[in-house]
Amino acid sequence: MNKITAAITGVQGYLPDTIVTNQDLAKIVDTTDEWILSRTGISERRLLKEGASSDMAVEAIKGLLEKKGLSPLDIDLVIVATVTPDYPFPSTANVVCDKVGMTNAWGFDLKAACSGFIYALQTGAKFIESGTHQKVLVVGVDKMSSIIDYEDRTTCVIFGDGAGVVLLEPNEEGYGVIDAILRSDGSGRKYLIQPAGGSANPPTIQTVEERQHFVKQEGKTVFKFAVTNMAEVSAEIMEKNNLTSDTVDWLVPHQANLRIIDATAERMGLPKEKVMINIQRYGNTTAGTLPLCLWDWEKQLKKGDNIILSAFGGGFTWGAIYLKWAYNS
Amino acid sequence: MNKITAAITGVQGYLPDTIVTNQDLAKIVDTTDEWILSRTGISERRLLKEGASSDMAVEAIKGLLEKKGLSPLDIDLVIVATVTPDYPFPSTANVVCDKVGMTNAWGFDLKAACSGFIYALQTGAKFIESGTHQKVLVVGVDKMSSIIDYEDRTTCVIFGDGAGVVLLEPNEEGYGVIDAILRSDGSGRKYLIQPAGGSANPPTIQTVEERQHFVKQEGKTVFKFAVTNMAEVSAEIMEKNNLTSDTVDWLVPHQANLRIIDATAERMGLPKEKVMINIQRYGNTTAGTLPLCLWDWEKQLKKGDNIILSAFGGGFTWGAIYLKWAYNS
Repeated sequence: MNKITAAITGVQGYLPDTIVTNQDLAKIVDTTDEWILSRTGISERRLLKEGASSDMAVEAIKGLLEKKGLSPLDIDLVIVATVTPDYPFPSTANVVCDKVGMTNAWGFDLKAACSGFIYALQTGAKFIESGTHQKVLVVGVDKMSSIIDYEDRTTCVIFGDGAGVVLLEPNEEGYGVIDAILRSDGSGRKYLIQPAGGSANPPTIQTVEERQHFVKQEGKTVFKFAVTNMAEVSAEIMEKNNLTSDTVDWLVPHQANLRIIDATAERMGLPKEKVMINIQRYGNTTAGTLPLCLWDWEKQLKKGDNIILSAFGGGFTWGAIYLKWAYNS
Repeated sequence: MNKITAAITGVQGYLPDTIVTNQDLAKIVDTTDEWILSRTGISERRLLKEGASSDMAVEAIKGLLEKKGLSPLDIDLVIVATVTPDYPFPSTANVVCDKVGMTNAWGFDLKAACSGFIYALQTGAKFIESGTHQKVLVVGVDKMSSIIDYEDRTTCVIFGDGAGVVLLEPNEEGYGVIDAILRSDGSGRKYLIQPAGGSANPPTIQTVEERQHFVKQEGKTVFKFAVTNMAEVSAEIMEKNNLTSDTVDWLVPHQANLRIIDATAERMGLPKEKVMINIQRYGNTTAGTLPLCLWDWEKQLKKGDNIILSAFGGGFTWGAIYLKWAYNS
């Protein structure tokens, strides 16, 4: 028997209808379209006006099941990467399974900030590789608008709402997740954090009034660490797997900032044509960025393509995954 | 090469010093020692007066590393099961890795309420089984006092604070995690929930004033589902693995209510001597209960013991794990 690998056999995204442009934000905070675009690469982002993270995940999953001709009952396991779960507990995975009717699945939420999707993809892959699970959904979803301070011009321009999901299935021909390098450094936690709402600072009227339930970011520090670490780990996984800028077909980078993406591509020696970028339309959807890229580019991907997924985010957490694409659309 | 299984090779717990007795609670809510003890089996529970969940996890992990003669640098991966993370993000795993100096490890938080530890144990086992990870810490920790309403006599008497951790290592002699049956049913979410603090109901002055950031439980409904499902899944994993009441050495049940534990043991045909019960001293520490039981009983466990871990909780989530104990203390 050949070694079982976990192949992505389908991908689907969901974005809420409401578009928030840079011009819209310039009306509520002191910023300009030019400033946002030149510093981040973002022109617009989406906003989920009503509902919670599960509602976006449900739409993505329903679309994927329909596209694949699968019944909700076919799914074994659902892993939801998110920092904006519907509730502190129970898990968003439970909510999603109930709403979609995936009554044969168990599931849990996985929290690793902007690296949530690659951490969850590697975790889901382990359940496939061990032979115990056949159809695993890995969801990346965040309703960032629920934790964004629309009085803070340094963060409210960056983030957006969105969801993506991939289906993992066993493969015996060597397609799927080939390698992963995942890292974290908790000493960076103070630079990108939601300070209140957990056991360190439970919600009080004071924490609400002090706006401590919103994302706080020291942008310059995070940018510096992100540029270095995302580029380094992406180059490292190439070398470890004897990949070159010629044999890597696609970079799928976390969409936090266009300059971080450019630095990573440059370090890997990749031309712009091999880099998936949709940050201009969606902003940073946190756990949603990577599956949303795969969804936007799905039709261009070919069986056998060598793909590097790469992310950096709160924690700090970061890493890269080397994936061999398993199908032609 | 023999199949690699994930063996628990060490366990450690941590409980804060402050003891809250039933008599203490009878001073602040309308209840009695007799009522609490007869309905739940709980006499006292612990309270972490200062600090967050990570502080308890750190003490448990430091104790385990010292006991095992390991350096923090030996650890590959840290999975923290919790519903009371220090922060909504970054993850408690990141905080813990930094505080202990586990700089070679990556990690994430896993959320599955009272079933968090068995879900995380099975997840950690997959990383060992695949051969990519050698030393995985699975932590169960909750500072339930941070989400308990001390004006609600139906919940404040049940929960306590505590942490436990196990070390997973590869084993080629057939010890460790042998089988798992894990289930969930999100239609039960409304019966055991923290309604506010996520993307469905972000924190506002109103949600704080309405006490929506506390655990809400419909006790009767949860009790009914717990009794049935925890007993059923425990019996099911016995049958699936050809175990009998004679060949099962220990039941390690989630410590939510003594009557649920008794019903599970009865369904499995196990005498009281084979059932780990410490609920009278710690109450329900949510993700902490199972590793705290293993810690309290560690010296009585023998290499080769057949152990069933079983849990039921918010979601609903539930399941059972069959474990072959790997060492003599």
